[in-house]
Amino acid sequence: MQYHLNGYQGRDPAIAAINPDCSGRMDNVDVAVVGCGPAGLTLAAQLAVIGGVSVRIFDEKDGLPAYGQADGIACRSMEMFEAFGFAEKVCREAYQVSETTFWRPDADGGILSRADRIQDVEDDLSHMPHLILNQCRVQDFYLETMRKSEIRLEPDYNRRLVALTCQDGSEYPVQGVFECLDSNGGLETVQAKFLVGCDGARSMVRKSLGYELEGGAARQIWGVMDVLAVTDFPDIRLKCAIQSGDSGSMLIIPREGGYMLRMYIELGELRGDERASDRGITPEILERRARKILKPYAFEVREVVWFSAYEIGQRVCDTFDDSANHEDKGRLPRIFIAGDACHTHSPKAGQGMNVSMADAFNLGWKLSLAIRGIAKPDLLNTYSRERREKAKELIDFDRDMARLFGQKPKTPEETALFQRYFQRHGRYTAGVETTYGPSLIVGHGKRQNLAAGQVVGKRFHSAPVVRLSDARPMQLAEMLKADGRWRIVAFADSRDTGEKDGRIAGLCGFLESDANSPVLRYTPKGADIDSVIDLRSVFQRKHRDLDIGAMPKLLLPAKGRYNLVDYEKIHCAYTKVGMDVFDLRGIDRNFGALVVVRPDQFVAEVLPLDDYSALAEFFSNVLVEANR
Amino acid sequence: MQYHLNGYQGRDPAIAAINPDCSGRMDNVDVAVVGCGPAGLTLAAQLAVIGGVSVRIFDEKDGLPAYGQADGIACRSMEMFEAFGFAEKVCREAYQVSETTFWRPDADGGILSRADRIQDVEDDLSHMPHLILNQCRVQDFYLETMRKSEIRLEPDYNRRLVALTCQDGSEYPVQGVFECLDSNGGLETVQAKFLVGCDGARSMVRKSLGYELEGGAARQIWGVMDVLAVTDFPDIRLKCAIQSGDSGSMLIIPREGGYMLRMYIELGELRGDERASDRGITPEILERRARKILKPYAFEVREVVWFSAYEIGQRVCDTFDDSANHEDKGRLPRIFIAGDACHTHSPKAGQGMNVSMADAFNLGWKLSLAIRGIAKPDLLNTYSRERREKAKELIDFDRDMARLFGQKPKTPEETALFQRYFQRHGRYTAGVETTYGPSLIVGHGKRQNLAAGQVVGKRFHSAPVVRLSDARPMQLAEMLKADGRWRIVAFADSRDTGEKDGRIAGLCGFLESDANSPVLRYTPKGADIDSVIDLRSVFQRKHRDLDIGAMPKLLLPAKGRYNLVDYEKIHCAYTKVGMDVFDLRGIDRNFGALVVVRPDQFVAEVLPLDDYSALAEFFSNVLVEANR
Repeated sequence: MQYHLNGYQGRDPAIAAINPDCSGRMDNVDVAVVGCGPAGLTLAAQLAVIGGVSVRIFDEKDGLPAYGQADGIACRSMEMFEAFGFAEKVCREAYQVSETTFWRPDADGGILSRADRIQDVEDDLSHMPHLILNQCRVQDFYLETMRKSEIRLEPDYNRRLVALTCQDGSEYPVQGVFECLDSNGGLETVQAKFLVGCDGARSMVRKSLGYELEGGAARQIWGVMDVLAVTDFPDIRLKCAIQSGDSGSMLIIPREGGYMLRMYIELGELRGDERASDRGITPEILERRARKILKPYAFEVREVVWFSAYEIGQRVCDTFDDSANHEDKGRLPRIFIAGDACHTHSPKAGQGMNVSMADAFNLGWKLSLAIRGIAKPDLLNTYSRERREKAKELIDFDRDMARLFGQKPKTPEETALFQRYFQRHGRYTAGVETTYGPSLIVGHGKRQNLAAGQVVGKRFHSAPVVRLSDARPMQLAEMLKADGRWRIVAFADSRDTGEKDGRIAGLCGFLESDANSPVLRYTPKGADIDSVIDLRSVFQRKHRDLDIGAMPKLLLPAKGRYNLVDYEKIHCAYTKVGMDVFDLRGIDRNFGALVVVRPDQFVAEVLPLDDYSALAEFFSNVLVEANR
Repeated sequence: MQYHLNGYQGRDPAIAAINPDCSGRMDNVDVAVVGCGPAGLTLAAQLAVIGGVSVRIFDEKDGLPAYGQADGIACRSMEMFEAFGFAEKVCREAYQVSETTFWRPDADGGILSRADRIQDVEDDLSHMPHLILNQCRVQDFYLETMRKSEIRLEPDYNRRLVALTCQDGSEYPVQGVFECLDSNGGLETVQAKFLVGCDGARSMVRKSLGYELEGGAARQIWGVMDVLAVTDFPDIRLKCAIQSGDSGSMLIIPREGGYMLRMYIELGELRGDERASDRGITPEILERRARKILKPYAFEVREVVWFSAYEIGQRVCDTFDDSANHEDKGRLPRIFIAGDACHTHSPKAGQGMNVSMADAFNLGWKLSLAIRGIAKPDLLNTYSRERREKAKELIDFDRDMARLFGQKPKTPEETALFQRYFQRHGRYTAGVETTYGPSLIVGHGKRQNLAAGQVVGKRFHSAPVVRLSDARPMQLAEMLKADGRWRIVAFADSRDTGEKDGRIAGLCGFLESDANSPVLRYTPKGADIDSVIDLRSVFQRKHRDLDIGAMPKLLLPAKGRYNLVDYEKIHCAYTKVGMDVFDLRGIDRNFGALVVVRPDQFVAEVLPLDDYSALAEFFSNVLVEANR
């Protein structure tokens, strides 16, 4: 963490100085967020942490419930939590998924047996683990993040959206009318530049736009319960996929705290118009079924913490913003939907909360940059395109998964097929396979060969490095804060020591003084030089072989009111075997590579270190000339 | 973290259920702590976390100040913070000391040059890093820990101890009278079973006992300041020891947040009766001197966050409890002193806060076990003995260090000598070399050969393992919570798989059913079987080669109101090269080893796995037969 830049201040460095312009409850806000679920809180927290934007967030409940149904936290979500600064809190409380085992009747007597076990997250997929933790705790961490931000954001509870309109032309064109469900009663009207519906599968925002979730249910019914239970089933603290001979399938997910577990239990097909709720599913029914599936092992529930029954369905909205309702294609989208409001699917792949948060994380920085005049408003059109594609892919995946999971494996080959599918998709469910297509913020990757492992359109893949100034071993990802900044990560060629004749110095020279430098063009007057575009470098040499005194000034920028030097921009490869970022990420050792990273940690483009005009052009498409 | 054992409960699992018997402000308490510095808070937090004991903690200030002078956090202190559950919070905010560099005039022109650089913490010294963080943040984390404990402990501020007496015979023999410095005024009298003075170098508790700190000052004066500054000195973000040609010595310690740094600056000898305060040291004087030492590098202070001048002195109290004031040698000590109240020394070795917290961590569990009737009161006599010896050793070390630091290096040989000394003592300053001599809680280590790397009298040395139940890679130290429990760590022999004929099963058989079993003899009726002595095992086999179903029941104990199984007792070696705990800690592969660990994480004894009588005898010396 970097702090005390503008003088020593107080105790908890996570508490930002209040920004009086954007804090407090206003009737006119830059962004109104409807819904305090994981998507809404991710969005609100991101806007609050970046700062400079006024935000309100509403929920019809009277507070956050003490139990939420989502629990799976993909590696990619942990990477995002790290950007927000609370990954280690999640780690501390969560269950860590290390292995998955597969059970089925054995070939001999049909006795339930462990058929296979696999590593849950393949090596070097992410520097973060796959975890299980109640979504309420994740929400708590977001609330804390919002509370400590410069706008001291707190949700407005007991506010149900009852009307939503948008009248182009005014500064705050979106009008939301909320019914006050607390003792005061009455209505509250809020005007906003933008409004985002994160209000779940029955989204009022989506309905106001006249949109529907398209798709169908698979007519399979599943029960789910979180329990404290006693069993002699040996893998009860491992993630298990169990396919019994004739009692259906079950998925066991151990939960946080060491005692609780979640079970997803197959309950058969729905008939005719039947709904899951018609079945009158009780915890006792689920326990009986679980016992049957687990036979010959004993299983006894001691406390039912939560249970539900649901039918599998995959549905998605055609578009995630209000542009479809307007003829004018150049018009700015003003209303967005995110999370369950625009896509629903079965919970077993553990994707719901993760994909919803990823929606919001895609949108938040775009809103912030557009509102603050740093980026062109056109940026906002990329949200629906990028996330709709992701949602459709998720739904296809989920349909395959649900189908396979519901099948009775008749042969060992069928079971093996299921296992392979499960394994292959570990990468997918980890959330690191999301790829955004070319747009004004994703390049064509023509020079992808310079950094084969930093794929254009995918998230920047962290690796271990050593910081030059203090010799600290760290992950590159530690620099990728959720602060709304673009990053240029310059990987040096093998000869480069940062000195005058090298490519890194050349790049810094361009960025520091050329009229086309995006750093100069887009950074507002008086702002720190890294406040819009943050340059970082990674050298191939060991840190002890480099001289920090010879480094270009742009890598040691003077910042803040005292012009203190920021010493955290320069990194070196960690030269232990198997830990070198240049090997791990396929960086061209002869030429190095320049990787442009979006504020949401996605790789926007890979370029040669000296292709200054391509670099300048990339940013000219998205950023707005600053008033210097 | 383990939680939800007795049912799902609420949100933050760190918040314990209130214990109505011990919470609330009482006039009669089990333990009164005087002073809210690092020692007092460590003690109060430990008592609060273990639970079952009423505590009050007083301080004459009106709250904790926003700045404290201590900043170094040794690896050993981080291990202790991990036991309290806040190590990762400290990590997140702190500066990590990775390397130390040494500067002196070079042989040619006398220009200041880097003579050497060394790794700060040698490999495998501790699984925790060496960090720098303002003591106020550490105190904040303790306050949070106390606040979330079952007694919801908050300090009583504005209370100055004015009188202290002890009248043996009654249940609450210690009487402390406090002057109320807040608006109410008046006096408050508190009766306690035990009182601990953690009230600093001018300790009122120590004075009440009639004790003095013995020793002398070295008559050297040093200045210290925390600053935000600008310099082109290249190692400004590394810990540096600088010995200039003729301007004295300086130590630079980079601080948390990336910009601040601490400087210890030599200012020469004191004359006659002169005191450090007589010199009228100002930040300007310190800055000028620093600039001279750093020449030819530029150095300019932009903000002085804190400064002070001090003379080096090493002083220690003869005894750390009130027993010296009483003829009766069998009498229980009732009043203790800890931290700066019983030893002072120079700050440069970064030992002050660390040794003070270690004092308290040595005492807290002893008080808790004695008060709750689990251990024999005689245990309390070990505190003064163990910690006085440590303090004396520290003072000798500090004297050597101060002398060496103050010397002008005349030759490269002298500089090299200084560097070697500095390096050799890294181990010492990391806090992991503390060794307690034989007593009723430290054995003679006759079978030390069975576990050469778990030294009797030193802290249990963590290593990576894999947990059997959930395949989670972790550190063994994660199990060593600050919960007042003794631990038996049973390292299995190479053949053992936990099955019936093995040594682990034999040990479990003894502990589960033999009349001499310390687990049976000392665990109160109705308490969980691991609540006094917690058995853990570590197998040599890979976790995939072991069958959890074949493990002895004592390693899978049923606990809490639901008799849920605790799955976190069984570990396996992590078989990656260089990561195997049996190799790392020199465990005898043929015979295995049994390591008894004290509640403060120190190794009490190493025994053969099947020497049941030695194990029984060890515990019979310290624990009290439970009323079963």
